Amino acid sequence: MTPATQPRVIIFDTTLRDGEQSPGATMTHEEKLEIASLLDEMGVDVIEAGFPIASEGDFAAVSEIAKRSKNSTICGLSRANYKDIDRCWEAVRHAASPRIHTFIGTSPLHRAIPNLTMDEMAERIHDTVTHARNLCDNVQWSAMDATRTEHDYLCRVVEIAIKAGATTINIPDTVGYTAPRESADLIAMLLNRVPGADKVIFATHCHNDLGMATANALAAVDAGARQIECTINGLGERAGNTALEEVVMAMKVRNDIMPYRTGIDTTKIMNLSRRVSSVSGFAVQFNKAIVGKNAFLHESGIHQDGVLKNVETFEIMKPADIGLTAKNIAMGKHSGRAALRAKLKELGYELADNQLNDVFVRFKALADRKKEVYDDDLIALVADEQTNDAHEFLQLKKLRVVCGTEGPQEADMVLSIDGVDHHIDATGDGPVDAAFNCVKMLFPHQARLEIYQVHAVTEGTDAQATVSVRLQEDGRIVNGSSADTDTIVASAKAYINALNKLIVRRTKSAPGDDLKSVNYKDAS
Amino acid sequence: MTPATQPRVIIFDTTLRDGEQSPGATMTHEEKLEIASLLDEMGVDVIEAGFPIASEGDFAAVSEIAKRSKNSTICGLSRANYKDIDRCWEAVRHAASPRIHTFIGTSPLHRAIPNLTMDEMAERIHDTVTHARNLCDNVQWSAMDATRTEHDYLCRVVEIAIKAGATTINIPDTVGYTAPRESADLIAMLLNRVPGADKVIFATHCHNDLGMATANALAAVDAGARQIECTINGLGERAGNTALEEVVMAMKVRNDIMPYRTGIDTTKIMNLSRRVSSVSGFAVQFNKAIVGKNAFLHESGIHQDGVLKNVETFEIMKPADIGLTAKNIAMGKHSGRAALRAKLKELGYELADNQLNDVFVRFKALADRKKEVYDDDLIALVADEQTNDAHEFLQLKKLRVVCGTEGPQEADMVLSIDGVDHHIDATGDGPVDAAFNCVKMLFPHQARLEIYQVHAVTEGTDAQATVSVRLQEDGRIVNGSSADTDTIVASAKAYINALNKLIVRRTKSAPGDDLKSVNYKDAS
Repeated sequence: MTPATQPRVIIFDTTLRDGEQSPGATMTHEEKLEIASLLDEMGVDVIEAGFPIASEGDFAAVSEIAKRSKNSTICGLSRANYKDIDRCWEAVRHAASPRIHTFIGTSPLHRAIPNLTMDEMAERIHDTVTHARNLCDNVQWSAMDATRTEHDYLCRVVEIAIKAGATTINIPDTVGYTAPRESADLIAMLLNRVPGADKVIFATHCHNDLGMATANALAAVDAGARQIECTINGLGERAGNTALEEVVMAMKVRNDIMPYRTGIDTTKIMNLSRRVSSVSGFAVQFNKAIVGKNAFLHESGIHQDGVLKNVETFEIMKPADIGLTAKNIAMGKHSGRAALRAKLKELGYELADNQLNDVFVRFKALADRKKEVYDDDLIALVADEQTNDAHEFLQLKKLRVVCGTEGPQEADMVLSIDGVDHHIDATGDGPVDAAFNCVKMLFPHQARLEIYQVHAVTEGTDAQATVSVRLQEDGRIVNGSSADTDTIVASAKAYINALNKLIVRRTKSAPGDDLKSVNYKDAS
Repeated sequence: MTPATQPRVIIFDTTLRDGEQSPGATMTHEEKLEIASLLDEMGVDVIEAGFPIASEGDFAAVSEIAKRSKNSTICGLSRANYKDIDRCWEAVRHAASPRIHTFIGTSPLHRAIPNLTMDEMAERIHDTVTHARNLCDNVQWSAMDATRTEHDYLCRVVEIAIKAGATTINIPDTVGYTAPRESADLIAMLLNRVPGADKVIFATHCHNDLGMATANALAAVDAGARQIECTINGLGERAGNTALEEVVMAMKVRNDIMPYRTGIDTTKIMNLSRRVSSVSGFAVQFNKAIVGKNAFLHESGIHQDGVLKNVETFEIMKPADIGLTAKNIAMGKHSGRAALRAKLKELGYELADNQLNDVFVRFKALADRKKEVYDDDLIALVADEQTNDAHEFLQLKKLRVVCGTEGPQEADMVLSIDGVDHHIDATGDGPVDAAFNCVKMLFPHQARLEIYQVHAVTEGTDAQATVSVRLQEDGRIVNGSSADTDTIVASAKAYINALNKLIVRRTKSAPGDDLKSVNYKDAS
């Protein structure tokens, strides 16, 4: 079978819905739009953009993503009631290709939550899928906790959903409980027993609680499922979802035993992985499959006899397959604007002229201070440029910090608030605390720091540091980040970046918005 | 089948060999002894402690781990030659239960490296396994790259190894290439076709390049393998090895479909995960299965309706199963020494009196500065105590740093070198660079900073920061870490901690030692 004639597996990405709902991974509106646009470009068939009724923010993001969609189908989630489904349709209808996704928990434990009998739930499924189908031709129905649902009942409700017009039937392993053979058997059983099963697409949606999400999804495909639900970096609640990069690369590398094709341009994987990691604040571990820093030997910089003799001895895929270029010195201090533009394009960034100018100025400043400017340094610069706009409400103008073993540590700051410079000094427990205290005194707020992380962008003591912070205030969650060779400056800028996002959020969303009091778990 | 009568799967941990050889994860002698002792306590059946001929350091570590072993079998790795095997035996013979592990690459690509014909390799296998068996009753033989070896040839060499006396036959998926069904089929094929296969234990050794190491190992067990080779946190080259915590918990949680028992005390998992992450410098990602920060819902602190109603709705295992206690306020500033000792014991630390005294003094200082002292704060304090001994060659006495937007940043440091205080000031590109420059001027060295990471131990701006650094000098690799509420102080202390380790290493090992010029890849 040549690849072109192999069965096509639909890649359904839920980074923006199931990924984004993982505790602490909340993304801003702009971040969601950017990720959706990158997913669309990469060739994702269906983007689950959010849960429209869960919050005003989710609704706005799904609507805007639908409007901007190019090739991807845009899907929204809704529980099994008309109000949810109507709200979902309102958001996704703007897409060239919209999909309504509605679900209900069918296992005994989940049936107990809305306290429905088997018959009552069956009727609810019939009514809600019919309602969705009356709005939209493309309807996905999910049996939440399917892997713990009685087989007979699962067959019965799947049949009802198909008859009511569902075009995709999703069989989620909501608790990350199954194993490959069981996952395959379940799909095979449904295809075998349910009348009309051959007329719809079966989807697999796995969680990684026991470390088998990728294998379980691929086993389901082997048994006849034709849609894999997944997220970039395996982002998601608890141990996360099936990782898009793993299933896609597994089918590519082992096409001999998994003869299925996808529409994914795998060379976009690395850039998406970096962006999702950055906006979610979820770092990817070194030994993560496909996208971890150590995933490719050649990155280690350590001489490997076998690999030098024949790269296939230990490498089953090429770094370039996922868009990973060799770690090299990107630019010198004499590189010009055109060279910078070309290099950034190679790294996947196309900047407007004014953005390029700003990045160029900062690149020159960095090249003056740092011996070697690597690709990763440029990526950090661009990310920083994108998050630290000069027109923000709060801007760091000057910072001086004194710290060390003999505290209290002191910070002296000039902060521009809505265009007016303010000066203050403050002490703190540590230089970061002192700098943050200056900001708090000049711009009082109740936000709590939930995550603070620093990573060196490249090697060497003069490396830039990337700082990520996450703040929560009244249930609104924002992430900020910044890069600088001075860790404390990067920390202050990241904090201010997060506060600027929070200020925008205050005007746009209600308190508690990010906590999603209406959430995926409320199956009633 | 009651659990007691289920087939027993041998857990073979190779954190100290395959894990430790991953680029950058090199551990010190003392760290290896500590990890081995924790693995032994946890009930690991076989500890692969190192590759004795690879370096003097490996030899010393394997010997000492063998001498101190209690219940675990201690295994060393050796290539297919007498010198390697003799050296391995010299190291492991001190154990109550020693094992020699010898391997050769049997796939076409790997046969080409030593340039052996099939017949020549077969003879080599016979001779080396016989030699190993003459030294030790317990011999494991591995067919490196077994998953890419011709089936007929694999059967032939496995039969030779069995006849020569191997008691365990390991079938590694060296490049992380296989999928569950193929992994199972390979073991079944060998059990079916190789004479004498029923007299030995078959082992599975999987890598995670396509994200399926856990599922592949469990599929092999299902087909008859009775030893799983794995590492804590899935540590290992590239995407790492099968994660011990995942296979062990999968067999426990899904014992209904995977009816196998192990000897692992799962409540020790979390502590081992933390220790391995700390000494290897490989952070575990939030969404890692079993041991990630987000792996258990209750950790998120976010209200979850379903879980409150019935914990089984979304949780398939209990945090306590892996030794994870609830995140709580551990101690107040009025807590006494006895309370501290009890709390530390609960967290898995038993300290000598003098260590406890030191930790108590530092705990009091922290409690004065920080509103809430959490379990994680105490873990950081103890880790810091264990890595920053007061009798070290280099000690930070005083540090004052001035940094901010208007560089150059300056540091002023008093460093004790072999008991004598020295004072200096230096500038740098960023406060960390300035502090490191002080150290470099007072104690010149050529070490290169390879990794620099900062994590907040808990939430809040006054949280302690844990800094990890990795230095390399002449091919010697060391990790240092430290915790402090002042990030810059923690950075300087972590750097000095790493230098102290490097000073010890200089006297004990040759340049290039950690690069292991003789390594697993040299199959000849």
